This record gives sequence, C-alpha cells and structure tokens, in this order.
Amino acid sequence: MSGDHGLSVTVPAALSCLQEDPDLQIVLVGDQPQIEAELRKQKAGPDSRRSIRHTTETVAMDESPSKVLRSKKDSSMRVAIDLVHEGQAQAMVSAGNTGALMATAKFVLKTLPGIDRPAIVSAIPSVNGYVHMLDLGANAECTSEQLFQFAVMGSALITAMQGNAHPKVALLNIGSEEIKGNDIIRGAATMLQASSLNYIGFIEGDGIFLSEVDLVVCDGFVGNVALKTGEGVAKMIRQFLKEEFSASILHKMAAVAAMPALKALSKRIDPRYYNGATLLGLNGTVVKSHGSADVVGFANAIRVGIREVKENVPHRISALLGEALKTSVDVRAA
Amino acid sequence: MSGDHGLSVTVPAALSCLQEDPDLQIVLVGDQPQIEAELRKQKAGPDSRRSIRHTTETVAMDESPSKVLRSKKDSSMRVAIDLVHEGQAQAMVSAGNTGALMATAKFVLKTLPGIDRPAIVSAIPSVNGYVHMLDLGANAECTSEQLFQFAVMGSALITAMQGNAHPKVALLNIGSEEIKGNDIIRGAATMLQASSLNYIGFIEGDGIFLSEVDLVVCDGFVGNVALKTGEGVAKMIRQFLKEEFSASILHKMAAVAAMPALKALSKRIDPRYYNGATLLGLNGTVVKSHGSADVVGFANAIRVGIREVKENVPHRISALLGEALKTSVDVRAA
Repeated sequence: MSGDHGLSVTVPAALSCLQEDPDLQIVLVGDQPQIEAELRKQKAGPDSRRSIRHTTETVAMDESPSKVLRSKKDSSMRVAIDLVHEGQAQAMVSAGNTGALMATAKFVLKTLPGIDRPAIVSAIPSVNGYVHMLDLGANAECTSEQLFQFAVMGSALITAMQGNAHPKVALLNIGSEEIKGNDIIRGAATMLQASSLNYIGFIEGDGIFLSEVDLVVCDGFVGNVALKTGEGVAKMIRQFLKEEFSASILHKMAAVAAMPALKALSKRIDPRYYNGATLLGLNGTVVKSHGSADVVGFANAIRVGIREVKENVPHRISALLGEALKTSVDVRAA
Repeated sequence: MSGDHGLSVTVPAALSCLQEDPDLQIVLVGDQPQIEAELRKQKAGPDSRRSIRHTTETVAMDESPSKVLRSKKDSSMRVAIDLVHEGQAQAMVSAGNTGALMATAKFVLKTLPGIDRPAIVSAIPSVNGYVHMLDLGANAECTSEQLFQFAVMGSALITAMQGNAHPKVALLNIGSEEIKGNDIIRGAATMLQASSLNYIGFIEGDGIFLSEVDLVVCDGFVGNVALKTGEGVAKMIRQFLKEEFSASILHKMAAVAAMPALKALSKRIDPRYYNGATLLGLNGTVVKSHGSADVVGFANAIRVGIREVKENVPHRISALLGEALKTSVDVRAA
C-alpha cells in the first residue's frame, strides 16, 4: 500500500519480479479488494507463488513512529514485518514512512546480538561503479561503538552481495588529517584501526563519489544530508543540461546528436537502479524503497531483498561481528 | 604565499584585480625576492597602489592551528591578518591552511560582540542562481544559539551583497517535518521562528540546490560534508559525461556539436566563479580561497573581499544582531 504511487507501482513491480525469479514467492500485504483490482488491471493470471494478506489499516507518510507502533497493528507495514518475524516471509519491502518502518522493524524483529541500533544502508553511484554507505538516516546521533558496528554490518553486506572478502571501509569526516573531526569519529577510527576490517581512514564528502572505497560509514544525520545533497546536485545538473540544450535551435540540434551519450550518463546516475535501502542489523531482512519509486525502482528494491535473503546477510553480520567484537573489546580494555 | 600554486596564482590574480578596480590597493605579504621575481615574470610595471610586506615564514597546509598561532608570528598569514587588525588593510585573502587561518583570525581580530564563533560562509550554485551556506567547516559542533547567530550573520551578508532586505533562511535537517532532527536544531528553529529574520523552516540536503532559499544554516561538520559531497557529485558527473562522449566515434562527433551547451553548463557550476569563502563574525574581513584555485578563482576571492569591505559587512552583522539578540533573549526568557 506504500509509497507515493501505492499499488499502481508495488503490484506491477511484484509481478515483474515473480516473472524473472522462479524461486520467488510474494505475499501482497494490504487491502485485498484494492490489490485484486490492481491485479485485474495488470491482467495477472492465477499464480501459486503469489498470495494476498488482507489488512485494514495503512501508515501515512507523516505519522509519528511511536503512534504507528502503538495503534496501527493491522497496518500493511506492521503485518508484513510480523510475517518476517513469524517466519512466513524472509524479507519485507516497503516504500512507506521511514521512521515508522524503522521503529516497527526494530520493535518486532529486534536487533542482532551485539548490535545496538539498526542502520539504513544503500548503494550509490561512484566513479568506481558504486559504493555502499550507512547510516543514511536512522540514527541522528551515534557513538563510536555504533559507528564501528555499522562498519561491521556494511562489510558483511558487501562481502555477501559482491563476494568482496575485504571491502575497503572509510569514515566520513571533514578532513583527511587525523586532527580533524570530533571525538566520536576519532574513537571509531581507533576501534577500526585495531580491528580485522579493511579500514583505510577518513574521507571527505567528495571522496564518497571519487575514491576507491567500498563502504562509507557515518552517523545518520550526516549520511542523510550527504545522500540528499548528492541527489540534489545531480537533479540540478540535469535541469541545467536541459536548459542549456534548449537555449537555441543549434543547441537543440546538438542535443539530438548528444542524446545517446546523455542517456548513457543518465542511466549511470539513475536513482532507480540504486533504489532499495536495507535496514541492516535486524533479525530479518527489511528493505526500504524511495517513496517516489516507479515500477523499475520498486522492482529493484524487491531484488535487493531477494539477494540479501539468498546470501543470508543477517547471519553473516553476526559471524563478522563475533570476530570484530573481540577486537573492539580488546581496544576498549587497552 | 598560499595555496597549491603559491605566487604564480596569487600575484597575477592581484594584478588583474588592481587593473579592473581603480579604488583597490593591494599589499602583497610574503617573501619579497620571490614576489618581485613573480612580478617581473608577469611584466608588471610600477604601481603606487601595490606594495610588498616582506615576511620570513609560511604556514604549511598540514600544520596544526595551535602551533601556527604559537610559533609562526612572521608568517605571511599572520602578518596579513595583523595588517587588518592594525587598520593598514581592510581585508585579507588567503588560499592557505583553513584551520590555521580560522584560529589566527579569531585570535588576532576577535569576534564581533555577541558572536561566539566565526563561521565560514560561501555562495554555491543552485537552480535559482546561487545560495549562501554556513558554517562550511569552522565549527564541527554548534549550539542552538550559535546556529541562530550564523543565521543573523548570513542574513546580514546577503542583504549587504545582494540588496535583498529579507533573505529566506532555512535550517538544514534530515526531514522537513518538525519531529525530525535533534534538540540543537529544534532549539535553533524555535529561536529563528521568534526572530525578525525571514525563517522559512527546515530543508533537506537536496533543498540546498533545488529550493528557493537564500541562506542555508547548519553546523560546520554537516556543512562541510554537504559542500564537498556536492563538489564530488559534480566532478563525477563531469567524468561520466567525458567517458560517455568518448565511448564511440559517433558520441565524439556529438560531443563537438554539444560543446557550446556543455561549456555553458560547465560555467554555471564552475567552482572558480564561487571561490572565496568568508570567515564571518570577525572584527574585519578575511576571505579563504580554495587551495587549488587558479588565477580566475583567486581573483574572485579577492573580489569577494573588496565587496564585503565596500558594503561594511561586519558593521551590518552587528546592527542586525542587536535587533535579533533582543528576540533571542526574549525566546530564552519565555
């Protein structure tokens, strides 16, 4: 039921993923009559791998997380997370209210042992293809220990998803020299240096996109600002390009010639292909799609969930944390 | 003596500004023989509006601010700031070590009455032309009161530089709803709402570039990350464009046709035309150029200093603060 476009996006995205992945089973959680109407609209035939779980409530984009947790127990969001908790589903995907999703997922699924707080992680485009970054907005303030846990969680995810055994981890800071930043970041750096993770040091904001790092770690406030800033600059440049290419007849003709290259560029930074942020650190897989995602974007979020389930990401996080926590305790004892 | 390129950039930039502005007088502070050699290289004739102040030391880019403050009393940076303090100059422009520049300027010039800490402000491109933003890296952590003071300082600057009597002020946050963010930002919002400033509310990272705001206020950590992130994305897109336009002969031919539009785009986001960040809140004008600035960029930083002196920005900040502080005290008393 979630997202700016609701069922007109989520249902066709689900159908398209069912078609491409014969292992997949999908439970559509929400208002059954509306879902059935959308399925008819999409001319979807019967499919034993597809079922509907009727719910009577939905979560609005501006509802407070605590209110949702208290009063929306038959919302599509809550029931879908309950299904994961009960083992009837292995992952849930939502384009809904991020704060409510985070609070509900944390309350129902609980965090993995040794993980204080879940964090939001996503892949974003970079000169090397893409880079993972967390936290993107779940935790406005973090301790050094939490930043360290984020590094463990992100490293396990990248190893699982890309087969990269030693992903390069960087801390986002405001200077590459060790004297800069604040005590929390310097504390996390000390823990990372002593750990078995492949920690390469501090990077600044431009390094997210321009350096050869696999994972960028930061608190949720800074991460969210960086993510949205990046999206804003990309949109602004797209608008400027459009304006410049329609500034005169000659420019318009040039635009036609330039179209294939511009389209290729557009695809490389198209947020739809990076859609699907994971709430990492939970006993279960929860994927958050951008609220404004279209069918292509939402299908990508579903695929992120499928891959994390197939690669058993929560288990891998626990395994890596066991190894890394020992180091962390050593550092704190030292 | 400052910046990645030293005198080969700063001297020709100074000469070019002297040529375009008949009111300008420039003191070149640094190693006299080296400056004279550069002037000969630039074939600069005698000019009564140009003088040299010889110094024996320079500040390295990686020196700690406290060490510079203690031991580099005959550095070009320190002496140039001393000249402002002594009234022999009205502004100083440097492409040197930001931390050392901030510490030295604060120590020598002191902050304006009622201002706790100076902040770094700069104009950056946006869909509306440009937007001012502060703090860009001087203060990693800020109180609500300091964010409020930044809003006053930035508003006074914009009114002085653009004749805009009621610049629209926004606080950078991770959600536009009032429930998001942290106590410090919410406290600043309360003070701004009650003030005479034209406060329009929270914006997220993308809003810096896409919304109709004149001033974005945030702490120096977040501001620095956002600024560098924006630069990183712009560079990445430039590189992607280059790659796509050389991917095939056809694309290369298209690139030739597209060149005028691409050049126009490039000019709109060229950081050189936005070079020159001000250390706002001091008893005097101090402008920081990007270390890698070329002659065009450094000349722009000099022009920023000239305009701020002509518009008497420090005086305007004090005047606006007097008005705004009353409101702030009222809010805290309420």
